Amino acid sequence: MQNWKTLERRTILKHSKFLRVEEHTIELPDGRVIPHWPWIILPEYVNVLVLTEDGEYLCFRQTKYAVEGTSLAPVGGYLEPGEDPLETAQRELLEETGYRAAEWVDLGHYPVDGNRGAGLAHFYLARGGRPVARPDADDLEEQELLLLSRAEVEEALAAGQFKLLPWAALVALALRVAPE
Amino acid sequence: MQNWKTLERRTILKHSKFLRVEEHTIELPDGRVIPHWPWIILPEYVNVLVLTEDGEYLCFRQTKYAVEGTSLAPVGGYLEPGEDPLETAQRELLEETGYRAAEWVDLGHYPVDGNRGAGLAHFYLARGGRPVARPDADDLEEQELLLLSRAEVEEALAAGQFKLLPWAALVALALRVAPE
Repeated sequence: MQNWKTLERRTILKHSKFLRVEEHTIELPDGRVIPHWPWIILPEYVNVLVLTEDGEYLCFRQTKYAVEGTSLAPVGGYLEPGEDPLETAQRELLEETGYRAAEWVDLGHYPVDGNRGAGLAHFYLARGGRPVARPDADDLEEQELLLLSRAEVEEALAAGQFKLLPWAALVALALRVAPE
Repeated sequence: MQNWKTLERRTILKHSKFLRVEEHTIELPDGRVIPHWPWIILPEYVNVLVLTEDGEYLCFRQTKYAVEGTSLAPVGGYLEPGEDPLETAQRELLEETGYRAAEWVDLGHYPVDGNRGAGLAHFYLARGGRPVARPDADDLEEQELLLLSRAEVEEALAAGQFKLLPWAALVALALRVAPE
């Protein structure tokens, strides 16, 4: 099986550092050409599920523009230019919660939309989290920090209380490798 | 906690039925106004992990534009206008694989991007799958149908072989409720 070839790419919307849209000319393996394939460029981001030294999970209850009501959420944020995703994850953990973590498990790096791109999600489980500073987040959203048991995280996941695709994805992947 | 208010929405890119971009004027709970918030409208889609009557998982090995090399993938596709996501899931299963399934478990409905929207992902586990027809897919991608054991699906998920965010998300969520 062969990947599709990008013959040409043109920017058709340059909104801001948060969004650019391209149109690609694509060649399929059988030679067919698709002339106007939309492609979306969004910032890469990290999400981190944090397990504390005491065996609790660090989560937020927060609002988010695409989500109705409030949602449970892991730590997360956009990569700064030139930043390695693990650095972003460690920086966001400290900024958003004031915690550091002893052990970082890489849970994968996933394109968000199979046809359009729309960014890359980088997922981590952080073990051995402990508070070392006061949170210093610059997020626009209101948020409340919670410490949940594994059973509470599992129930919340099953009940759809992690309401966003990357949040549910990260939590489901992290629980597979976190200690029971 | 209060959700952000959308004061105004303007279309700034009308590409096709596959992509529209808006700019929103947003009011935060503290009264601040954000005038140029980008918002992406993509089609809603379903993904389905299918467990056959024989206890095997139906997956594809396929290419996808946003993914390097090949990936394992569940059944999936876009909602047609007016279609209920469960209908889409059942239609896509039949078209892509020629299977029907006896029992459908709803695994949730998730906005794809917390800030930009970028569509809704609808996830299902289908149990009791059995072949009833020849596949009749109109997808552009080359794909090969596979029957995998639960252990093979688990290994592939851990190895990052479901390479796309919604695919890894669906598989991780589905394994939580599928029988061991």
